[in-house]
Amino acid sequence: MSRRIGIGLVGFGFIGKVHTHAYQTLPLFFDPCPVHAELVGVCTSRQETADRAAQIGRYSFGTTDFDQLLARDDIDVIDICTPNHLHLDQILAALEAGKHVYCDKPLTVDLSSAQQIAAAAKQRPNLCHGMAFHCRFVPACMKARQLIADGFLGRLYHYRATYYHAGYTDPARPISWRLQKEFGGGALSDLGSHIIDMMMYLLGDISRVRGSIETFITERPVAPGASETVPVEVDDYVCLEAVMGRGGRGLIEASRFATGTQDGFTFEIYGERGSLKFDMMDPNFLYAYDMRDPEGELGGERGYKQIECVQRYPKPSALPSPKLPVGWMRFHTQSIFDFLHALSENRLGTATLFDGVRTQAVDEAVTRSVDTGDWAEVHYPC
Amino acid sequence: MSRRIGIGLVGFGFIGKVHTHAYQTLPLFFDPCPVHAELVGVCTSRQETADRAAQIGRYSFGTTDFDQLLARDDIDVIDICTPNHLHLDQILAALEAGKHVYCDKPLTVDLSSAQQIAAAAKQRPNLCHGMAFHCRFVPACMKARQLIADGFLGRLYHYRATYYHAGYTDPARPISWRLQKEFGGGALSDLGSHIIDMMMYLLGDISRVRGSIETFITERPVAPGASETVPVEVDDYVCLEAVMGRGGRGLIEASRFATGTQDGFTFEIYGERGSLKFDMMDPNFLYAYDMRDPEGELGGERGYKQIECVQRYPKPSALPSPKLPVGWMRFHTQSIFDFLHALSENRLGTATLFDGVRTQAVDEAVTRSVDTGDWAEVHYPC
Amino acid sequence: MSRRIGIGLVGFGFIGKVHTHAYQTLPLFFDPCPVHAELVGVCTSRQETADRAAQIGRYSFGTTDFDQLLARDDIDVIDICTPNHLHLDQILAALEAGKHVYCDKPLTVDLSSAQQIAAAAKQRPNLCHGMAFHCRFVPACMKARQLIADGFLGRLYHYRATYYHAGYTDPARPISWRLQKEFGGGALSDLGSHIIDMMMYLLGDISRVRGSIETFITERPVAPGASETVPVEVDDYVCLEAVMGRGGRGLIEASRFATGTQDGFTFEIYGERGSLKFDMMDPNFLYAYDMRDPEGELGGERGYKQIECVQRYPKPSALPSPKLPVGWMRFHTQSIFDFLHALSENRLGTATLFDGVRTQAVDEAVTRSVDTGDWAEVHYPC
Amino acid sequence: MSRRIGIGLVGFGFIGKVHTHAYQTLPLFFDPCPVHAELVGVCTSRQETADRAAQIGRYSFGTTDFDQLLARDDIDVIDICTPNHLHLDQILAALEAGKHVYCDKPLTVDLSSAQQIAAAAKQRPNLCHGMAFHCRFVPACMKARQLIADGFLGRLYHYRATYYHAGYTDPARPISWRLQKEFGGGALSDLGSHIIDMMMYLLGDISRVRGSIETFITERPVAPGASETVPVEVDDYVCLEAVMGRGGRGLIEASRFATGTQDGFTFEIYGERGSLKFDMMDPNFLYAYDMRDPEGELGGERGYKQIECVQRYPKPSALPSPKLPVGWMRFHTQSIFDFLHALSENRLGTATLFDGVRTQAVDEAVTRSVDTGDWAEVHYPC
Repeated sequence: MSRRIGIGLVGFGFIGKVHTHAYQTLPLFFDPCPVHAELVGVCTSRQETADRAAQIGRYSFGTTDFDQLLARDDIDVIDICTPNHLHLDQILAALEAGKHVYCDKPLTVDLSSAQQIAAAAKQRPNLCHGMAFHCRFVPACMKARQLIADGFLGRLYHYRATYYHAGYTDPARPISWRLQKEFGGGALSDLGSHIIDMMMYLLGDISRVRGSIETFITERPVAPGASETVPVEVDDYVCLEAVMGRGGRGLIEASRFATGTQDGFTFEIYGERGSLKFDMMDPNFLYAYDMRDPEGELGGERGYKQIECVQRYPKPSALPSPKLPVGWMRFHTQSIFDFLHALSENRLGTATLFDGVRTQAVDEAVTRSVDTGDWAEVHYPC
Repeated sequence: MSRRIGIGLVGFGFIGKVHTHAYQTLPLFFDPCPVHAELVGVCTSRQETADRAAQIGRYSFGTTDFDQLLARDDIDVIDICTPNHLHLDQILAALEAGKHVYCDKPLTVDLSSAQQIAAAAKQRPNLCHGMAFHCRFVPACMKARQLIADGFLGRLYHYRATYYHAGYTDPARPISWRLQKEFGGGALSDLGSHIIDMMMYLLGDISRVRGSIETFITERPVAPGASETVPVEVDDYVCLEAVMGRGGRGLIEASRFATGTQDGFTFEIYGERGSLKFDMMDPNFLYAYDMRDPEGELGGERGYKQIECVQRYPKPSALPSPKLPVGWMRFHTQSIFDFLHALSENRLGTATLFDGVRTQAVDEAVTRSVDTGDWAEVHYPC
Repeated sequence: MSRRIGIGLVGFGFIGKVHTHAYQTLPLFFDPCPVHAELVGVCTSRQETADRAAQIGRYSFGTTDFDQLLARDDIDVIDICTPNHLHLDQILAALEAGKHVYCDKPLTVDLSSAQQIAAAAKQRPNLCHGMAFHCRFVPACMKARQLIADGFLGRLYHYRATYYHAGYTDPARPISWRLQKEFGGGALSDLGSHIIDMMMYLLGDISRVRGSIETFITERPVAPGASETVPVEVDDYVCLEAVMGRGGRGLIEASRFATGTQDGFTFEIYGERGSLKFDMMDPNFLYAYDMRDPEGELGGERGYKQIECVQRYPKPSALPSPKLPVGWMRFHTQSIFDFLHALSENRLGTATLFDGVRTQAVDEAVTRSVDTGDWAEVHYPC
Repeated sequence: MSRRIGIGLVGFGFIGKVHTHAYQTLPLFFDPCPVHAELVGVCTSRQETADRAAQIGRYSFGTTDFDQLLARDDIDVIDICTPNHLHLDQILAALEAGKHVYCDKPLTVDLSSAQQIAAAAKQRPNLCHGMAFHCRFVPACMKARQLIADGFLGRLYHYRATYYHAGYTDPARPISWRLQKEFGGGALSDLGSHIIDMMMYLLGDISRVRGSIETFITERPVAPGASETVPVEVDDYVCLEAVMGRGGRGLIEASRFATGTQDGFTFEIYGERGSLKFDMMDPNFLYAYDMRDPEGELGGERGYKQIECVQRYPKPSALPSPKLPVGWMRFHTQSIFDFLHALSENRLGTATLFDGVRTQAVDEAVTRSVDTGDWAEVHYPC
């Protein structure tokens, strides 16, 4: 018997639609599906878009009043898909109202906000919460996590990891909220949160960082074609050295200026017993090298194995066939399933608000390192 | 204003769910979405599964009576997801009842059935019809079609194409309907229909074929672990030489015995002015070589370009972001959108029942060639 | 103590230089090197080129008189690098003169010539002979051979193999000896001999074939830019179905019209227990899939392993380091070493004139099949 | 008419053989070959190995007395293939003796030694000198240089570059000269010199660096299997941020602990107009992305082009065929040709001792940065 969970979602831009897609289609992708998500209400900034969101998303109603979502008894989960600077108040209000929370990344715009969220969440251990760290739900990344947990790497030597795209290489691209500090943030916040979360998910806490940031285009037009410009306040690029709590070290980069890159989420991890590689643009496979394979003439039996992760999700995943090429939407579907499934069992799922807080703590340490020009310890509030 | 289209679907196995997913989520993926698919009825073989299909799929009702779908005025489209041997009667009945038809591949089990379908469809030019040739809706394949139509290849020299998987390499795998002639068919029918359709979609009609088939495992257990066996009546593997109507030639293979293969749908096309390559396991890219690039020392400017097709669907496709890795479900969503969009404009879409008939004509010629050991002309009834 | 072997080489075009490079540098590549190749004489068609060949190649003398090579007691091996139609007489003469023979491929221009050579070689079991099937000496191909010999594939299901290049796609390219039947031959003879040899080396004899050939450009200018043309007498392209003596089947293609291809020597082999893939343009690796790896969620442990063959030649290979990228020249060096090493131990090496005869027997069967339009049995004279 | 150049080589280990191979075979690889290298003398540390080197390498004599090489009038070039700590004295002596110098990398063990060499070389402008930066002679890297010089990248944003191998991941591997500071150096010196040289060759001077080093295995056995250990004095791993003189920035890593890596020399360069990628294990191709290609639906015409560099060396390179896979030995052959060709024209070639000095200056700045924990300016003595 699947548990009914009422959903109220705020923010119906690109990512709001992606989350809605997942709620709508859970019964098709999971069999048996232990949860039944009922799309109750959707909140946007104008009634017209709210009504349209309700229609497109099959929500029972649309509203511009966030409190209306909180007031409904038939809404169990608040899903937050608004711009980053709005997350704090909405999460606090949702938790205060006794709602479970699922939040798109990054959690919020600075560490102190994140700490408030962490504190609020800890005070309500009966509430479940989740972060949309969808990369954790790529089968190949799930496999990497499993292998590492089983000791595949042995002692970690070093790794490198990137989250690249090429969205801002054109100096004529005008300013937007993702280029303004108060609303969101730069490459570190936007892209870095995903890749930092992944490396900690796989390899444990980062204890110290040293980083650099750069803004390649320092002025942008106020609008397409405009001659008037405003300064760009955020980082286009960040790189950081990360010393891991369990030993070993890494280099992490995030860039919006990696010309020619699509969704450039990658990692390479080198350990004493093996190594692992992943690239989001080749998402069906994890590449694993096992030092326990015998070496010898003609290559012995050593080499990277292209593990066929494809759609080989664990049960109750049932759609599509395990051998078919996996795509980006599916990762979010699995992420939302994981959250709701955990909720239905009164436990926390794979990625929580605390994980969002932890990436924010690393961000803050990187920013501190950039300011001082020196290494910075990471302080995790949870 | 989007047009309402009522859907009745028959057969709710794997592919029925995939089609249902598409109908459910069209408004999220397309903006503006010119059609509104209403999921009215679903038909399966037992009331219990029908009820469950209605619930999971959000259909208004479930039934075991196919005629009930046909009788409803609020159903405009009959979507056929049953085993292949049932397609003929269901399509004829649906057309007779004045319904538009969307059919999963292969169209049917032999050419004479296909001819009956073609005749029935021709008699009702006011009805739209579509085939689920989802491979046509991979952006990289759409790009290949566009480039070829623009003359990219020049004169065709030769090509090779495969549809491989590895599902039946284990001799202990028991018999099933896909291994029995009366219910479905072998590699030629099951996989060949997709790859033959693609090569004709890209390169025009096949005029003559010469082929071989092989059944590697000729006896299979009647059930898992059973010692009793029955003969396997269908081909595990087929290869064919294809002479193209416009000149040039190809080699096409379909196999269920390509050990280590996931969804091995691939093509390589060599022409006077350029060449193209695609592999479904690297679905985000089309590889294109252009002889008009200058040659010279150090490679000149020549080489295969990895065209970043990703999710760069034409408008009104709106989800997900164009740069994100594409997956298999999305191809079906685009296929169904294409069909319904055409229907809303009272025209035929990209893939029709006639295309299903045409692949069946090639299948029949291959079978004839296998029987005679000689080349066989392909006779297209439409 | 390394054995001195005197070399006389006939034909100092491209391939003559490649062989000469190998003889010159054996002591650097192999340590200890069991043979000492002394470059005694080189024969070309004009004294001027012969003198220059001697100088460049460090031969003691150059000559236009092939018999002069045969007459020398200090010449042990005759290495034949002339156009294909000259091989027969030169090999027969060399064997008659008691010389060991190393011959570039293809062995000769037809099966009856090949049979004469086989007969002559059999009559002189004390003479060693070798064929320059350099592809056998790519470490990744050596690895494939070793794995298959160890039972890696189990029962063979099917394979496909190509030897493609793009050298003749331009219709303006004038006629040359490789396009004329009497001097050499087409794609089947030129490229097919390599890939047919490889598939038989790996998988055993081909018992039956059915093939097609095509000449895409049927007339060529007599010279660059000339308006006068002559007919092209040879095949630009060949494809063949091959039924293997030990069971299983394959598709082999050779083409000079594979636009965009460099050195397109590839194979994919699918068997009950595993599969193997190789591509000469990615020569450092063999890709191997092992069905004995456990399957399961998230890919289990299955997938293609990229075996790091690189320069991991067996001892006494000593140069360069095993981890460095391998190149084409090295394969010929290893081939010549293998031949001379075997000779120094009075045995036949890895590839002999008999192997050349065997590929010629397959060529002849393909030609017979093309003529009759039917399957042809392969008759091996040795 | 090719110029005779007498060669005296010191150090006949692995790299001495590689250089010797190049000298021996120049007339085969280049046609016309403007130089004739005569192998006069070879010097090693023991007469037995010297005699053997002379025999294997076809030098006129072998000696243990380096001065004997310097004293010979028929020796024009001294080629230095000894361990790094011996380079300084040998180069100075060679220049003093009026010899041209070709030196394997890295130039020497510290910047002050490098400065002495630079000063000595500047004082003798009539002498030519070269460094074996063989990576500059990979056709794909030559192509990258050409494209960048032609403005392909536009403004540089950022790059990353590695030189990885996996040679020391096993803690049981005993100490050796490459792990001892006085004789050679660690990853920075050994591998970093190549990749730093490449990035400066492509992108111009590095102006500032900030780096970290790490020694993963701090104690090693004195001999295989020994229980006695000694400290490892050198870096196993180095990473550095590099700010470029012309703008833009990069991340460079060198590691001997990149488990599973063969010859992991790679770069990715992102600029305003395009980007470039290279990987030594896929050496036949350069990957280039050109922002001037039009974008659009279905990928427009954008994507990485796999430029077919293969063996498409500029003339007079004549061997092997341009389409064949290139290997590591060939890069050294081209490097030595470039040096001798320049020498024959009384000019400096592509890579000189000054380039060796410049990489040493970067090494020194990295070391300074590691010591201070802060950024360090690079001071180039030439």
